[in-house]
Amino acid sequence: MTLLLHLADFNERAWADRFQAALPDIRVVTRADSYDPAEISYIFVWKPKPEAFDGLSNLKLVLSLGAGVDALLRHPRLPELPIIRFMDADLTQRMSDYVVANVTMHQRLFTRFKRDQQARRWVQLYPAAAWHANVGIMGLGQLGMDAIRHLKPFGYKLRGWSRTPKAVEGVELFTGAEQFDAFLQGTDILVNLLPLTAETQGILNYETFSKLRRDGLDGEGPVIINAARGGHQREADIVRALKDGILKAASLDVFETEPLPKDSPLWEMDNAYITPHIAAASSEVTGVAYFSAVIRDHEAGKPLRNVVDRARGY
Amino acid sequence: MTLLLHLADFNERAWADRFQAALPDIRVVTRADSYDPAEISYIFVWKPKPEAFDGLSNLKLVLSLGAGVDALLRHPRLPELPIIRFMDADLTQRMSDYVVANVTMHQRLFTRFKRDQQARRWVQLYPAAAWHANVGIMGLGQLGMDAIRHLKPFGYKLRGWSRTPKAVEGVELFTGAEQFDAFLQGTDILVNLLPLTAETQGILNYETFSKLRRDGLDGEGPVIINAARGGHQREADIVRALKDGILKAASLDVFETEPLPKDSPLWEMDNAYITPHIAAASSEVTGVAYFSAVIRDHEAGKPLRNVVDRARGY
Repeated sequence: MTLLLHLADFNERAWADRFQAALPDIRVVTRADSYDPAEISYIFVWKPKPEAFDGLSNLKLVLSLGAGVDALLRHPRLPELPIIRFMDADLTQRMSDYVVANVTMHQRLFTRFKRDQQARRWVQLYPAAAWHANVGIMGLGQLGMDAIRHLKPFGYKLRGWSRTPKAVEGVELFTGAEQFDAFLQGTDILVNLLPLTAETQGILNYETFSKLRRDGLDGEGPVIINAARGGHQREADIVRALKDGILKAASLDVFETEPLPKDSPLWEMDNAYITPHIAAASSEVTGVAYFSAVIRDHEAGKPLRNVVDRARGY
Repeated sequence: MTLLLHLADFNERAWADRFQAALPDIRVVTRADSYDPAEISYIFVWKPKPEAFDGLSNLKLVLSLGAGVDALLRHPRLPELPIIRFMDADLTQRMSDYVVANVTMHQRLFTRFKRDQQARRWVQLYPAAAWHANVGIMGLGQLGMDAIRHLKPFGYKLRGWSRTPKAVEGVELFTGAEQFDAFLQGTDILVNLLPLTAETQGILNYETFSKLRRDGLDGEGPVIINAARGGHQREADIVRALKDGILKAASLDVFETEPLPKDSPLWEMDNAYITPHIAAASSEVTGVAYFSAVIRDHEAGKPLRNVVDRARGY
């Protein structure tokens, strides 16, 4: 019984050493090691190559380092086996850190004050307390729910939008395409934590932005925060909206093409807050702890958690 | 029985109208109205002029719009009467909004990523989760305690420093001058919410900064956040530390001279985050509600709350 690591962009050896220490009864190999494809029971992947799964005739599970599996589901030779995605406290916490840092920054009118500073202007605009700001979360999975848990103590007026009806205490909920406009019309700060699917592709577009509430945030104008996938956003629309004032600001951790191309106008916009897809990193320590438990539990016949629903896309 | 409003920089008429609506049995006057000084029972002040209290022979209480009373206590003819300072949920919430916005911003390495953006650099540094960051709060009064309440859900490692020993669950506590260095040595993000007294004047100086922890915040260096009083900080020291790297960044809402002089080097520093003393504004709605209750309770013979201790200075 062997675990194969197939991790583009990561240090496979460091992960393998940690896995081996956590799973002494299992052989752990990287792509650089010698192994028989038939001995592989588990494969742990990040950006698997087309031939990644070839010959793995005794594979039991596919373990995905990423929480988002949209790219993995488009793999041309993905086996018909359960896919387990990464979902742990450290990853969730980092995402919530990112969301709250950016929500509070915009609620406190950061862009307005930084522009005043650069102009050496002393204008005492007092930002309204958090409970005057409406924060709209798109996507109410584990990440969205944890963001809500962190935002609640501030008293933000929270609203959520999801594909299927949910009930969350203290959050005004909207469901599906027919309630999308109503959701947007009361939102000052729009936070995207949706999975990337055919329905959500390009959802952050100019029409969406133009429906957001305009008189919140002390009249400074609405903002967006995208910590999900670049495929959710139309960057040309974001640039246009940041220039013409339909959006006051945008915090973007993800992009249509990554790394963000050198010639993107977003780099030099003072009301675009660019981070290089680092909102919520998978970490070795928590990742190894999580997937070691998945393998041990599966070997012990326990039920699997966080299995990807392929029809749903996440 | 009359309430006199003496509010520099504020719209006295608007406040008077709100007070009159809240206190129909009491006469409310502004400095522009005709009144007999002997009829004044209560005076509500912000930056009172030297003659503000002259002739008010029947005054019962001094009501301070500001939560900080250091300037008021230096008034040359301040009567020997109880001073009630403003302390309400809206003010406290705004201060906590400011503190959390700036703590999370620095924990998420904002300065690093904004510099990368301006250089069109895509470098995937993954900020550690909040629980790896040590946040040190100076001042554990109502504002400090509320900031702690808001920071706790993130899992920050919290430490507090105050003049007298306190006990706060989940917070490592340090007391007085002899424990100040130990407090600083474990702090990545230093938040000042102290009252301004002879002991705390100039406490934010180069020596203080040089004692902060250097290897936290992913090695980017420590930061300070001052939301208390300009008198706490030595701005020449802050400029020096921001330039030589002893501080990575500083969020400053208050200044030695306000408005911040046009020729201050802080304006143009990209790692100084300047706001014009707006972290926690007194608001008309909550201010009138608060002081109307103070007057009604005092008239009904109930004990006073939030009375300033002149010996302590706050």
